[in-house]
Amino acid sequence: MRISELAAASGAPITTLKFYLREGMLQRGRSTSPTRAEYGPEHFDRVKLINALINVRGLPIAKVRKILSIIDAPQGDPVEAMGSAIGALPPYDVAHESADYPHAEAAIKSLGFTFDPNFPATRHLEAALEGLDHAGLEWNKNILSRYRDALIPLAEAELVPMKGMDTQEAVTYAVLGTALYEPVILAIRRLAHRQLVETHVPKIDPETPDVRG
Amino acid sequence: MRISELAAASGAPITTLKFYLREGMLQRGRSTSPTRAEYGPEHFDRVKLINALINVRGLPIAKVRKILSIIDAPQGDPVEAMGSAIGALPPYDVAHESADYPHAEAAIKSLGFTFDPNFPATRHLEAALEGLDHAGLEWNKNILSRYRDALIPLAEAELVPMKGMDTQEAVTYAVLGTALYEPVILAIRRLAHRQLVETHVPKIDPETPDVRG
Repeated sequence: MRISELAAASGAPITTLKFYLREGMLQRGRSTSPTRAEYGPEHFDRVKLINALINVRGLPIAKVRKILSIIDAPQGDPVEAMGSAIGALPPYDVAHESADYPHAEAAIKSLGFTFDPNFPATRHLEAALEGLDHAGLEWNKNILSRYRDALIPLAEAELVPMKGMDTQEAVTYAVLGTALYEPVILAIRRLAHRQLVETHVPKIDPETPDVRG
Repeated sequence: MRISELAAASGAPITTLKFYLREGMLQRGRSTSPTRAEYGPEHFDRVKLINALINVRGLPIAKVRKILSIIDAPQGDPVEAMGSAIGALPPYDVAHESADYPHAEAAIKSLGFTFDPNFPATRHLEAALEGLDHAGLEWNKNILSRYRDALIPLAEAELVPMKGMDTQEAVTYAVLGTALYEPVILAIRRLAHRQLVETHVPKIDPETPDVRG
């Protein structure tokens, strides 16, 4: 397809596509004449990915470029490549200065997971557990296991489509899935709280005088 | 306790406590002399809450002030007060211009939840589902139910400590729990993915030549 057709199909204006091309984020099409290039499904997928990261999750261009460079030339094994790519997703403002993760290490080992200090979520967990400590909210092996037990079946189902993908496809899928399903999960959790509170707290009828006082 | 003891106990410097007092975020202590005031456990709890919102979740002061004003004078029923307070937590940059939430409405009803367009997570879900659509990622009743079924038992366990709390305590707990457990959940989900990928992807031994090529 031509660039105008790619724009129509992907929902990104031609000027945006030209920006992606100039920035090297979108690979050039196959030249069919000095002024014309042909784009295929791989270009379409790439535009969808860039749009999702920029427009849906609000990532800065520099982070998108980093994710794309990992997808285009994944270094190390798939676990490492996925870790680096997902590490370029928010949160960015995780306050944790030391390179030690004592809370996260204890928590991760108690969950039966591999402790990997280089995996960015390890730092996120450390900061999150420190935050609970500072606020005086409880966390312990039992509470964390409850989260693990609920999240593992979800994570397993989320990984099913990755079977048979090569590293590049798998990293793309992992980034998109992490970036776009996290907001779904947080929204459903908040809605579940609302639903449970609504169901359990008796509605006070403003017409009925409060007889307790 | 005196302000210096409150500082030591809460981990917030005296200058920070004075800032909270000046801004009306922390209630004044009980005056015991013209230059001295006495602080109690309610002040300690308030400082912990403010610190968690500002330092752990990185909320702007204006949002913290909004949450505190809802806690101090909750309007409407508990569901409404909790909705408003939690609505002052991130995400703030949810791009959704219309006041209609067609995707979220269909999704929420399919989950058997009450559709409430005024509950902020409804808007978050709309934006999240639109994001999946734009990226060409699938979502349907079955996928969403999988998330609901995993999250409902967690949400139920999270609400247990709220039994017997009055609205003010319940709103405080809901805000803190939402703000501080969301990062834990996202980190554990990313760690679960890492763990599952590590377990299922055979590690390539760099010493062994790749016989596939």
